[in-house]
Amino acid sequence: MLEGIDTPALLLDVQKLGRNCQRMRERVQGGGVALRPHMKTAKSVEVAQCALGSAAGPITVSTLREAEYFFDHGFRDILYAVGMVPAKVERIAALTKRGARVSAIVDSREAARGVVEASLKAGVRIPTLVEIDSDGHRAGIAPADGELFAVAEVLGDSLAGVMTHAGDSYNCTSVDAIRAVAEREREAVVSSATALRARGHPSPVVSVGSTPTATFADSFAGVTEVRTGVYMFHDLVMAGLGVCAIDDIAISVLASVIGHQRDKGWVITDGGWMALSRDRGTQKQAIDQGYGMVCDADGRPIDDFIVADANQEHGIVARRGGGPVDFGRFPIGSLLRILPNHACATAAQHVEYRVLREGRVAETWERFGGW
Amino acid sequence: MLEGIDTPALLLDVQKLGRNCQRMRERVQGGGVALRPHMKTAKSVEVAQCALGSAAGPITVSTLREAEYFFDHGFRDILYAVGMVPAKVERIAALTKRGARVSAIVDSREAARGVVEASLKAGVRIPTLVEIDSDGHRAGIAPADGELFAVAEVLGDSLAGVMTHAGDSYNCTSVDAIRAVAEREREAVVSSATALRARGHPSPVVSVGSTPTATFADSFAGVTEVRTGVYMFHDLVMAGLGVCAIDDIAISVLASVIGHQRDKGWVITDGGWMALSRDRGTQKQAIDQGYGMVCDADGRPIDDFIVADANQEHGIVARRGGGPVDFGRFPIGSLLRILPNHACATAAQHVEYRVLREGRVAETWERFGGW
Repeated sequence: MLEGIDTPALLLDVQKLGRNCQRMRERVQGGGVALRPHMKTAKSVEVAQCALGSAAGPITVSTLREAEYFFDHGFRDILYAVGMVPAKVERIAALTKRGARVSAIVDSREAARGVVEASLKAGVRIPTLVEIDSDGHRAGIAPADGELFAVAEVLGDSLAGVMTHAGDSYNCTSVDAIRAVAEREREAVVSSATALRARGHPSPVVSVGSTPTATFADSFAGVTEVRTGVYMFHDLVMAGLGVCAIDDIAISVLASVIGHQRDKGWVITDGGWMALSRDRGTQKQAIDQGYGMVCDADGRPIDDFIVADANQEHGIVARRGGGPVDFGRFPIGSLLRILPNHACATAAQHVEYRVLREGRVAETWERFGGW
Repeated sequence: MLEGIDTPALLLDVQKLGRNCQRMRERVQGGGVALRPHMKTAKSVEVAQCALGSAAGPITVSTLREAEYFFDHGFRDILYAVGMVPAKVERIAALTKRGARVSAIVDSREAARGVVEASLKAGVRIPTLVEIDSDGHRAGIAPADGELFAVAEVLGDSLAGVMTHAGDSYNCTSVDAIRAVAEREREAVVSSATALRARGHPSPVVSVGSTPTATFADSFAGVTEVRTGVYMFHDLVMAGLGVCAIDDIAISVLASVIGHQRDKGWVITDGGWMALSRDRGTQKQAIDQGYGMVCDADGRPIDDFIVADANQEHGIVARRGGGPVDFGRFPIGSLLRILPNHACATAAQHVEYRVLREGRVAETWERFGGW
């Protein structure tokens, strides 16, 4: 039923998308906490509306272009969750003056000072969260550290609370380990907000977020919002972590078989790394999925076939670890669907979603890139 | 002089671009062979014109969207260098009827039959090259193999010659090894064309191509055209192979310093893998450049700093192998330029080139993605 779709193409199964979104809403909002879905994965207004279950709502973005795009599509409450620098104040100020509430994050006095000064000059106040480092993974200040209070002093009226991202959850090897990371993530921001409040700094926002920790956290006590993005689509990394089932993965890359290398047991497709991305996120997991798991055109996994290697516009499909191939199952021109390692990276290689409903492409949703 | 440029951004130094393009033209055309530059890296009409030294000329493309875009910009002689399948004939036929000469490639009777039949139905003849496997790297038929003659029989009047791509040249560890791969590449197609002609199959086109082999081949005897793309920009993989100097690399990603992790010796930037790509092509080379080599805003490499790790919108800059950092050199908001591992992958993450002339951004050239 996918004949006639130019390959390679990014397919999005809206039924799976809807199920994933509903599950996360029920889990987070059911826990009495706001969901502020992260748009870095989807970069699409239709997907955002599905995530929120409404036409608009609070969102997280990873680029100013996302902020501008979603504002133009009716979203008003936007958190830009990458460390803010003065040169970016102008674009946020422009959105603020048009009626947006765009929040920013910082993790140093130097950044805080620069952003406050630039905001003053631009004639706006940018609500700013202090980024807390809950796992040594990337950015942020140690929880309840002296530096945190110093940054809060610099922010003054602009201080809006604290946030963290437990990126380390992606490296866990068990659900118990994810639960432990989630508790550390929660504790890091809740203790920081409590310490700030004790020193007279209002800290209304207490924000956490990663798909694994949001899925398995035992408690959101003291947390006011959860940011999470990849759950909308899920991917093989999430499946490898036990966060989702293979059947939950809502996106796949449709590719055509273009050749056979019979001696080597290779099926060559037009789904190379340009369509799949260079992401090899399952490489360190128990099951290395190569550049993706191979399914038939209906989305059913084919034995243990993976994209074993990829060139720019060529995918090399083979049995995991090699082995004989029944090439009769892979005629030239036939269609395969590849499940991605990492939804954020794979989706970013495409300019549109071909939207599947009941196994047919029903419509096309645009997505965008750039900053 | 780059203040005011939103980061991250893809910079293209046109002086280096021009020098790289001229050098390849002189080398290939000076050898009496046609240059058919590959547009998979650049995806930009301005860059194509620079590569050809004229407004149009023969080009190679990796997607039908490239074929359509470049046709709309005046290019008429286009080789689509990914194995052809019947479902793609319609789009090529449409271009052919508008006056293009779009050639295709196949490496099996099954593909040849499908393409010939679909072309007949579409009312066009698509000049088709047989892909030869010169290095066991990807696709193609063994040189001068019986299968080659069988495919030529199926193609009949559509047969236009032979082509190969020595992708294995990227894995070489010396210039001598690249020269050997180049000679094997040449020999594979020349022997195949000779064998075809001996059997009465005209084989006018004898096409080779990869930037390393084009740079170092001792001979193009018997070859009619060279396809090569990454040389326009060059990158760290090419520098690691000895194909170019670091100073030849024409593209870089401009990023802002957004934070410091002093205890870890990390400078955090807004140039993550979304801006750099996930490509880790130098990982297996003698010098692993991480996600890219760090330069100051003027493009001068800073000691031994690399992007040691990358998240979606965060780059982690550190000394190669760790070590103390003078954070005074990396103030919050200051600009860095990152040289990419793989120009094709990094450029693909961007929707435009910010074009540098004499160290200033003089204009913006669009680039495109999709298929």
